[in-house]
Amino acid sequence: MPIHLHPDRLLPADPGVRALARRLYDSVRGLAILSPHGHVDARLLAEDEPFGDPASLLISPDHYVTRLLHAAGVPLHDLGVGRGPLSETAARTAWRRLCEHWPVFRGTPVRYWLETELGEVFGVEDRPAPDTADRIYDRIAERLAEPSFRPRALFGRFGIDVLATTDDPCDDLAAHRALAEDPAWRARVVPTFRPDRYLEPERAGWAKAVMRLGEAADTDTSDYDGYIRALEARRRHFVEHGATSADHSHADARTDPLPSRDADRIYRAALAGDATEAETLAFRRHMLLEMARMSCEDGLVMTLHPAVRRNHHPPTLHRYGPDTGHDIPLRAEFTDALRPLLERYGTADGFQLVLFTIDETAFSREIAPLAGFYPSVYAGAPWWFLDAPDAIRRFQRSVTETAGLSRTTGFVDDTRAFCSIPARHDMSRRLDSGFLAELVAEHRLTEEEAFEAAAELVAVNPRRAFKL
Amino acid sequence: MPIHLHPDRLLPADPGVRALARRLYDSVRGLAILSPHGHVDARLLAEDEPFGDPASLLISPDHYVTRLLHAAGVPLHDLGVGRGPLSETAARTAWRRLCEHWPVFRGTPVRYWLETELGEVFGVEDRPAPDTADRIYDRIAERLAEPSFRPRALFGRFGIDVLATTDDPCDDLAAHRALAEDPAWRARVVPTFRPDRYLEPERAGWAKAVMRLGEAADTDTSDYDGYIRALEARRRHFVEHGATSADHSHADARTDPLPSRDADRIYRAALAGDATEAETLAFRRHMLLEMARMSCEDGLVMTLHPAVRRNHHPPTLHRYGPDTGHDIPLRAEFTDALRPLLERYGTADGFQLVLFTIDETAFSREIAPLAGFYPSVYAGAPWWFLDAPDAIRRFQRSVTETAGLSRTTGFVDDTRAFCSIPARHDMSRRLDSGFLAELVAEHRLTEEEAFEAAAELVAVNPRRAFKL
Amino acid sequence: MPIHLHPDRLLPADPGVRALARRLYDSVRGLAILSPHGHVDARLLAEDEPFGDPASLLISPDHYVTRLLHAAGVPLHDLGVGRGPLSETAARTAWRRLCEHWPVFRGTPVRYWLETELGEVFGVEDRPAPDTADRIYDRIAERLAEPSFRPRALFGRFGIDVLATTDDPCDDLAAHRALAEDPAWRARVVPTFRPDRYLEPERAGWAKAVMRLGEAADTDTSDYDGYIRALEARRRHFVEHGATSADHSHADARTDPLPSRDADRIYRAALAGDATEAETLAFRRHMLLEMARMSCEDGLVMTLHPAVRRNHHPPTLHRYGPDTGHDIPLRAEFTDALRPLLERYGTADGFQLVLFTIDETAFSREIAPLAGFYPSVYAGAPWWFLDAPDAIRRFQRSVTETAGLSRTTGFVDDTRAFCSIPARHDMSRRLDSGFLAELVAEHRLTEEEAFEAAAELVAVNPRRAFKL
Repeated sequence: MPIHLHPDRLLPADPGVRALARRLYDSVRGLAILSPHGHVDARLLAEDEPFGDPASLLISPDHYVTRLLHAAGVPLHDLGVGRGPLSETAARTAWRRLCEHWPVFRGTPVRYWLETELGEVFGVEDRPAPDTADRIYDRIAERLAEPSFRPRALFGRFGIDVLATTDDPCDDLAAHRALAEDPAWRARVVPTFRPDRYLEPERAGWAKAVMRLGEAADTDTSDYDGYIRALEARRRHFVEHGATSADHSHADARTDPLPSRDADRIYRAALAGDATEAETLAFRRHMLLEMARMSCEDGLVMTLHPAVRRNHHPPTLHRYGPDTGHDIPLRAEFTDALRPLLERYGTADGFQLVLFTIDETAFSREIAPLAGFYPSVYAGAPWWFLDAPDAIRRFQRSVTETAGLSRTTGFVDDTRAFCSIPARHDMSRRLDSGFLAELVAEHRLTEEEAFEAAAELVAVNPRRAFKL
Repeated sequence: MPIHLHPDRLLPADPGVRALARRLYDSVRGLAILSPHGHVDARLLAEDEPFGDPASLLISPDHYVTRLLHAAGVPLHDLGVGRGPLSETAARTAWRRLCEHWPVFRGTPVRYWLETELGEVFGVEDRPAPDTADRIYDRIAERLAEPSFRPRALFGRFGIDVLATTDDPCDDLAAHRALAEDPAWRARVVPTFRPDRYLEPERAGWAKAVMRLGEAADTDTSDYDGYIRALEARRRHFVEHGATSADHSHADARTDPLPSRDADRIYRAALAGDATEAETLAFRRHMLLEMARMSCEDGLVMTLHPAVRRNHHPPTLHRYGPDTGHDIPLRAEFTDALRPLLERYGTADGFQLVLFTIDETAFSREIAPLAGFYPSVYAGAPWWFLDAPDAIRRFQRSVTETAGLSRTTGFVDDTRAFCSIPARHDMSRRLDSGFLAELVAEHRLTEEEAFEAAAELVAVNPRRAFKL
Repeated sequence: MPIHLHPDRLLPADPGVRALARRLYDSVRGLAILSPHGHVDARLLAEDEPFGDPASLLISPDHYVTRLLHAAGVPLHDLGVGRGPLSETAARTAWRRLCEHWPVFRGTPVRYWLETELGEVFGVEDRPAPDTADRIYDRIAERLAEPSFRPRALFGRFGIDVLATTDDPCDDLAAHRALAEDPAWRARVVPTFRPDRYLEPERAGWAKAVMRLGEAADTDTSDYDGYIRALEARRRHFVEHGATSADHSHADARTDPLPSRDADRIYRAALAGDATEAETLAFRRHMLLEMARMSCEDGLVMTLHPAVRRNHHPPTLHRYGPDTGHDIPLRAEFTDALRPLLERYGTADGFQLVLFTIDETAFSREIAPLAGFYPSVYAGAPWWFLDAPDAIRRFQRSVTETAGLSRTTGFVDDTRAFCSIPARHDMSRRLDSGFLAELVAEHRLTEEEAFEAAAELVAVNPRRAFKL
């Protein structure tokens, strides 16, 4: 079976609706990609080294791919997870496992993305299967050796205008600076401030982390004031290197203030290893509120995606490390959790808060109502497990009626799989076009408005929500 | 761009299904409107004064309209919120803001309702836009000066048979009485008993409120017995003035009984300002159960719509007052919360309980299962944020399979926007017709049954659920 | 009105999609039925006595049927609930009530199943209505007297290959043994171990139950060790009689371990009636973890369907007994609840855990993510209130994108209504076909894959998930 990428894929089945959807899609398919939140490493572009083997590029680092193979009984080891550079044999083995288990991806976006990547990026003509595995591997490997498949060349071919990375507050952002200073490089690659680990005293290694933070900021973090100043300094460093947002993910979204003397006391106790669980929790929730305050001051958009139980399976964590496919969603609550924050900053000039969820019950119940009142709040695109055609449709239908089309962020790829970026944005544009065509078909929107809205969702919403 | 109200709007896109949906819709579009729950003021009809300016009629009091404009950056002040009668300049400014920001309503029911009102009630031909704002304003203002646009004339033109208002227990219901006694007035306008503020000792002003209640009931409310007797008396007053339901909204739906000596003790403590938060909470939950007991005795249908965080943004509350667009939903729980109530009264003769939710997860999980067993329980129409085409479709698909078509209330407009009533009911009839046509298309219902069901949803279900 | 069972019922309305759906359905409609979880009594087949009257067969024991009639005001007594064998008069009365209230089932799967049963199993041509009630009753009664309508004959006609029953741990499984040893009987009827009542010390009668358990296992259950050994022994007894799974349902899914000395202490206290509520809860949660341990050892698939408030209406429980239509869903939580269990056994060889829910919010948020990582976890088919066309479609669209098609169990009828089994499986096959056809129509799956997947969902997934 060849890979066949049908030009109408993901468009609505009804012939009349599809015809309009296709025209809408044609009007936006070629627009530049804005990627305001993702996990590509800036060094990839700064250094522009050729990619390694196909498995290291497309399988091992991508938990979307490895998790379903793991569920099907393939050990993560066989997929190259957590092993660093792979030998040719190891890479081929991983690739074969993928191809042998290709049917497990039926009905998933991973299948959709990978087929699009294989077909459109690498010109692969075979569908993955046991007997095509080696041929596809060879084809990709061959391509990866060509100059036109280096990161910068692909970046250009993908039509990316802005790419945001996600970075540790202690990162010196040298790669971002190098790109910004490189006259041969014209796109924007901007860092994102991601301070989670510095805000959670209950995490192993927190005390060391805040010491490192102090060094990076050249500030004494042995007390709470120094810690706050260090965070502020590192945020400034990020702003100076082009950052427009700070990204936050904790087990919940609460933002309860602490009197500063309590914050100071808990901070010291946590450094000494003496803080109780209740105290470290209270501290983290207080710090999320502090992050909002800093956002008001330095202008970084605050993005929030709470309610994930990280590393659900400790044995896998210990053997393979984090981000290996077993972060599992929890119920999310925003209404009461964010009330202290929004009471203070919800209508503050320039403050912007993007809410992501993987508990989709929050879309219509909390996120859309919040984004439909507060000028600061934006409904983040469906993300992670929900970044898939049917889930995106549920998001469209759940959020738009309450918050309209203008209060969403537009698409966010959130990926570490560089080569999947165009496939992901293309999927989103197809789904936007289908949704808008359906609204027109029911006479809820005029055709003219639908064309305008399709372009805005791609080119205006992300710029507005992320201050690009 | 002119407003074009397509005759097939909101009907399913598939041509075959649409053809049947259109026939179903044609069979019910002209039926009289039953509005068993809403927020129109009875004095409007009793006094029949001309409406004021277009902004005071269609924008300022309607938080559905103002919230999205606020999110788009328009201060509520500019929209006339909380300002009482508006000057011509202020009214025009508000109207212009609406027209300038018209695109923010794309995909929302507000846009749908307003376009239908503008087109069908006021004969406006232009779509709102910066350059049409003044022309539309003038057109509406002109119309509002005509006798045929007075409240009673519109009421007649809208084809409303029964309209329920929502009223404070201390209200003397003079307007309702005046209408009932007016030989020139033939429709039913009935009050609804809405006692929330008298049941929540934690609210500011509660002690004064129960004193007022005592005066209204001519009963000494300085102890719990008197308080109960006063509530019973005011309910009787409402029943005597045609009320058929009592409406309740608290942060949760719990109905845990208190021994009466505890209720009495907490009541006295609350009056003295000495009750703890736990006590006032327990008292409120107990009182919701008491309301059910009274409903068993006086026959008022009990309607319940819990789980909203009222006045989420205190600065807006302080400046503009309540009901200004920042009530935000919370997770709702009914199964355990209502168990004490349903254990006692769930099968009691004549007792009826209508459950509304804006947490749509409760539809299939709790509300439909409860309404599908208890003869007293009805699934309330999707309401507030969920009173929109896609949300209504989710309700239809989530509730019907478990509770059938007969255990729902039919449509409830719940609006304070008088002129939107026909547009709202029309929307519902279109969606009912589409849903039923889809069931027929899949051979889950015969065509004959679909026609019968369409008529029942409009003309039978609300009468049954609300005892009209 | 005659019953008309349209050949395309439940297939998608779009003509192009329907054509493919019909071909997919035709390819699987005749496959043998695998019923890996249900509530038919094995004695029915072992004894093969003629069924009683139509009401005792189709109404009284089926809470799906009686609950909506009860909601419509028909007393359960009139439907024969909890009355044992019915007189001819009582049976006819119950049957008439059903026919009189036939419209309350519009839009529900009960209507769909019953019409299919009446039409396809009993050859009834009339649709239930007041004036057809007696004629239909007579027709069914006549049929039930024929040898070809005895349980074994119907079982053969239904094309059932494997039927799992649900059984008390103390059951001697004589009926299963009789069937297994009967040379005239060739299908598999396997028991399922259902130990809930033995694991919940807070339930009335628990102490007596564990004594009975001790007797059945010939083990002294006066201490915790004996209790554990007795449970293990009874599981072995089930395994020896063909069981492949153990089924568990508690108010929540938590699996928190207790040190064994605490388990022992609580066990003794509970036997003496001295355990606190917190202790019995902790014990039950610990025991669910123990059940997983035993599953690892004896190979029984663990199936879990938590979060139901059993017997919501105590007066109905007292008068009519359990399983009479008032078990009401609660919110379900799996991510944290199952973490201790999955940390220990989530990747254990041979361990399998099937997760059912009637809180559909868990599908995309928790169940699909868990089933998409853990090789042990399967997403159970939508069940009970969710075993209906639209809910099944939501399941398909919520689970597949994250977990693919291979991590689901395939259909589970879970019914005590023997004659509804073919109708239920047929419904599922139609819905699978429709879903797959829609994926093909959007070019998300090839036609060839869709045919393969349709067959696997029926014939492979249940065998794999339930180790049939």
